[in-house]
Amino acid sequence: MAIDDSAPAPNSERAACISPLASRRAIRAGRVQGSTAGFAPGYLQGNLAILPKALADDFLQFCVRNPKPCPLIGVSEPGSPHIPALGQDLDIRTDLPGYRVFRASTDYERVSDLCEIWRSDLVTFVLGCSFTFEDALMRAGVPLRHIDHGRNVPMYETNMPTAAAGRFHGPTVVSMRSFKPSNAIKAILYSDRYRLAHGAPLHIGQPEAIGIQDLSKPDFGDAPVLEEGDIPVFWACGVTPQVAIRNARPDFAITHEPGMMLITDVSAEAAEFSVMATPA
Amino acid sequence: MAIDDSAPAPNSERAACISPLASRRAIRAGRVQGSTAGFAPGYLQGNLAILPKALADDFLQFCVRNPKPCPLIGVSEPGSPHIPALGQDLDIRTDLPGYRVFRASTDYERVSDLCEIWRSDLVTFVLGCSFTFEDALMRAGVPLRHIDHGRNVPMYETNMPTAAAGRFHGPTVVSMRSFKPSNAIKAILYSDRYRLAHGAPLHIGQPEAIGIQDLSKPDFGDAPVLEEGDIPVFWACGVTPQVAIRNARPDFAITHEPGMMLITDVSAEAAEFSVMATPA
Repeated sequence: MAIDDSAPAPNSERAACISPLASRRAIRAGRVQGSTAGFAPGYLQGNLAILPKALADDFLQFCVRNPKPCPLIGVSEPGSPHIPALGQDLDIRTDLPGYRVFRASTDYERVSDLCEIWRSDLVTFVLGCSFTFEDALMRAGVPLRHIDHGRNVPMYETNMPTAAAGRFHGPTVVSMRSFKPSNAIKAILYSDRYRLAHGAPLHIGQPEAIGIQDLSKPDFGDAPVLEEGDIPVFWACGVTPQVAIRNARPDFAITHEPGMMLITDVSAEAAEFSVMATPA
Repeated sequence: MAIDDSAPAPNSERAACISPLASRRAIRAGRVQGSTAGFAPGYLQGNLAILPKALADDFLQFCVRNPKPCPLIGVSEPGSPHIPALGQDLDIRTDLPGYRVFRASTDYERVSDLCEIWRSDLVTFVLGCSFTFEDALMRAGVPLRHIDHGRNVPMYETNMPTAAAGRFHGPTVVSMRSFKPSNAIKAILYSDRYRLAHGAPLHIGQPEAIGIQDLSKPDFGDAPVLEEGDIPVFWACGVTPQVAIRNARPDFAITHEPGMMLITDVSAEAAEFSVMATPA
């Protein structure tokens, strides 16, 4: 599976896509081609993983055992293309700009809707993504180098293994963002508030300490931009479950096209409070 | 003013000093000689600065303008040795193990109580100290190198100026604690919760970026301990206001002996919530 990311593209639809519902309807109507970055600000966007029911229990275990790279925000009933808790009139088959369909191979077919290939045994997993904390950092005035340079975030396989579940296993993949030191501190504090979007980083400083031999050569995404005095900060990345799915070699699986996320009706702020323990 | 810190010393009284009131009474009775580290866990301890009323307004401004190094937790009425909001039966003159008395000089006299030199124009300022967040880090299982090695924390004058007020001015002084990277992230997150104890760090990584030429030679405290792969983390330090007082050359001033703090009745956790804005 050649995983890569499509850069956030200027999109004339974006200005009209303030609400999650309007965003999904514009995507469903074929009026959005590229990344969903910047759509429906303040609402959770999600990585997508769709698996046959026979593999779904193991993948659910994988997510539960690895909550930093795989923060679960929704799971469908088998066969249902809807997840009512994530959005009004939401249809998994049509509401993302692009999908990758895997059939017992690391090669994939790219499709723009799933209506013709949908099956009654498919279970959909939606996992939080880094757009949420990146929004929060930008609102707080913390520059993101890759966005300022119109690039994708660089991503790296590390020497930190995930906790395996059934056939799902592999390394933790991290994304790297670099900051001047005072902003690195802010980035740690602000991202920690968004546990459904990978939360606080896993590592800061020396790339070699987590098995990254050459920071300039990411495994996924674009080459990093580091300014003088920058310190690299590494977050758990949503590519981790994609690599685990690749390693499991399922007969059939679907993911989103990188950067083309499911836009939910769930407020990023409210969701963080809803996962807190509530008194009995 | 030769500022130095006395190392946290084993103290047979410490076990008996679970409550703040019992701690202050033991100190008042002369049964505690050394550092107050570890006394009354969970309660705020404070740095002390006592100035004549004529200088107090400027010093208050200095604290307000520099809240990271100078987090105000209490101010007395002029002439009063009590601060009722900070503790029951609390007497500033007797309830710290040691004091430094300055008289228009950087030299000082060391005294164990202030009863004979107390004046009707003295205003007492109590400022939060790092013991609070150090307690929180240790409870969270994050090792503190200086404590594990029985040393004082190393402190450094930086190239970051404070905001001056009247005659009070000078550099921001920082304390340095080093951690393996994953613990550095935790240290940033946990310390941020204790804004009255300097809050989140000011800097991480390269010492030169904040004007520290040689990390092995601190301006105050003991030499640092760094393990392989450690990353240095720098917090605003309570020595900052002491340096500002030194620079102001007051005719008369009193500070605590470093490490020998005022133990208050204020819960460190509760205090953080009380400083949040409350709805009208």
